[in-house]
Amino acid sequence: MANSITIIELAAALGLSKSTVSRAFRGNNDINAATKERILKKAEELGFSPNLYASNLRGSKSSTIAIIIPEFGNKFFSQAIKGIELIARNNDFHVLVYVTDHSADKEAAIIRTLVNGRVDGVIMSGSGEGKSHQYLKLLKKHNLPLVFFDRYYEDINTICVTGNDFESSYLATSHLIENGCKKIAYLAINKNVSIGKIRMDGYAKALSDGGIKFDEQLTLDTSNDAEINYRDIEQLIKEQSPDAIFASVERLAISTLRVTKTLGIHIPDQIKLICFSCLEIADMLSPALSVVKQPAYEMGKKATEYLFEIMRGNREADIQEVLFLESDLIFQESSQKKLTK
Amino acid sequence: MANSITIIELAAALGLSKSTVSRAFRGNNDINAATKERILKKAEELGFSPNLYASNLRGSKSSTIAIIIPEFGNKFFSQAIKGIELIARNNDFHVLVYVTDHSADKEAAIIRTLVNGRVDGVIMSGSGEGKSHQYLKLLKKHNLPLVFFDRYYEDINTICVTGNDFESSYLATSHLIENGCKKIAYLAINKNVSIGKIRMDGYAKALSDGGIKFDEQLTLDTSNDAEINYRDIEQLIKEQSPDAIFASVERLAISTLRVTKTLGIHIPDQIKLICFSCLEIADMLSPALSVVKQPAYEMGKKATEYLFEIMRGNREADIQEVLFLESDLIFQESSQKKLTK
Repeated sequence: MANSITIIELAAALGLSKSTVSRAFRGNNDINAATKERILKKAEELGFSPNLYASNLRGSKSSTIAIIIPEFGNKFFSQAIKGIELIARNNDFHVLVYVTDHSADKEAAIIRTLVNGRVDGVIMSGSGEGKSHQYLKLLKKHNLPLVFFDRYYEDINTICVTGNDFESSYLATSHLIENGCKKIAYLAINKNVSIGKIRMDGYAKALSDGGIKFDEQLTLDTSNDAEINYRDIEQLIKEQSPDAIFASVERLAISTLRVTKTLGIHIPDQIKLICFSCLEIADMLSPALSVVKQPAYEMGKKATEYLFEIMRGNREADIQEVLFLESDLIFQESSQKKLTK
Repeated sequence: MANSITIIELAAALGLSKSTVSRAFRGNNDINAATKERILKKAEELGFSPNLYASNLRGSKSSTIAIIIPEFGNKFFSQAIKGIELIARNNDFHVLVYVTDHSADKEAAIIRTLVNGRVDGVIMSGSGEGKSHQYLKLLKKHNLPLVFFDRYYEDINTICVTGNDFESSYLATSHLIENGCKKIAYLAINKNVSIGKIRMDGYAKALSDGGIKFDEQLTLDTSNDAEINYRDIEQLIKEQSPDAIFASVERLAISTLRVTKTLGIHIPDQIKLICFSCLEIADMLSPALSVVKQPAYEMGKKATEYLFEIMRGNREADIQEVLFLESDLIFQESSQKKLTK
């Protein structure tokens, strides 16, 4: 098994200094050829893994990638990280995890700590704040490739792996219209991030194609604070009396379920509900929740595979390229007139 | 704001070489005092953070900790990691994440990659395999402190932050007995890991105190494979006809819900159900799920605070010390005779 001893133990076994041993694993020639051969032979014999250590020494190769995400704890991001970690591990890479709390300042501060050789590449889902993200150019300056997943920035040229959100939003909204809804409220997240804008566009297009006028009053700009969202959703329902709600992220649907339960509003009889969600137990909720289910795990895997392709020089890094992975639309009790089961 | 420029940019601003600048941030005296002062002044002016870079240079301080967990994607671990990441970030530390897939071999292999200066400490929830975990002694040999959370190993002397699982299991089982249950099945996880054994012990003690004989036939050793668990739970229900099921981890309760739904068995009328779970939406399931809710987020935070105390020399590292954080018992529809609401 590789990696079973340290360089200190290897040096001790050889009766050499640690620095002499470490020179054997570097590219330069500041070591006697016979000594080098003896060290390498012993290293193989004892199962010492030179790669990891050597790359540490060189500084330019950390065997590490960073994941930067806006929030932690929801199913989407934990599934995505699971996929990223798997691909990284299969490549013998380490994974650093950072959370921005949806703050562009924190995102920028994190990026700045990564450019001193700590990582070889970055996988990121954008915080969604701000219009300019030029601090990301620092990565390019240091030759560190960046791949987005889910939430990308249009002012940064790189690869992004995301869901087919326009189409999914369009289909989810059309489904509500087919089920008789005419006043469909939309719970939006930050429009500065790609998915905020695109999901909203799909909703608007479906309304238009369905002959329903887009009504600003029925759209709600939400926050990252669950209490504020709860209050705003309650107010929206009371003042606008929507017959359906389309939540652009899972936590907004959960808040909606809590509000309607408290107000004694029946889903789906009085209000129909659908949302973007990666919950594996959406069918076990009461009512069973209709969802646009993104392939979060596959998204994480694919983004990381692309990152490795770039790091190995097998893929162009500086072109804007968006790969769309298809989401599943799972229509259940919460969005339908009658249960078909 | 700190960390806003790199050492390369700092060197450029000073008209000095990078190596001269980097010497200013090391403890030794191989630099002219006036030059050093000029560098430090400029660094402060431009917001360069020497700590991070200097610690990189020294090699002995990575400003990084590792989290090692058996699985990814459930609420417990994502909440715990959220807590760990927060404390690490507040200390300007980086966080590496590793998943063992419940394998002691992978756990050992990961440990071996961490001892070359990659991290300054380790937070771990044990994989649960094997009886001997002597590979963890490698950490001690390299002066790397280890703190367990949730799942610890009794043969390793260090601090562990976990739930008051014996008491919680006892109370959850007693609650089922109070609700008239006499054939309470127990879905166990690996008994080689602390929580597997302790949760089972709490269940057994409550049975004994309730005058119910412990029945081996009613306990199920589960696997990490959801399909196998589904089949085994189905078989247990069909062959043993339990009147209650106590699931020691969340995924086993979800499997139980799926099995009973398919078999047309009503919860709680025919079988009552309770489980360890960190689901925030347990009350929205159908039926609302009774849970032992562990303080996962606090557990992650506390374990990390202890790790920093050890790393700073303010806490003993080599003593076995278990800190129990209290879980909430939330009794809902799934485990009760009648709903009281």
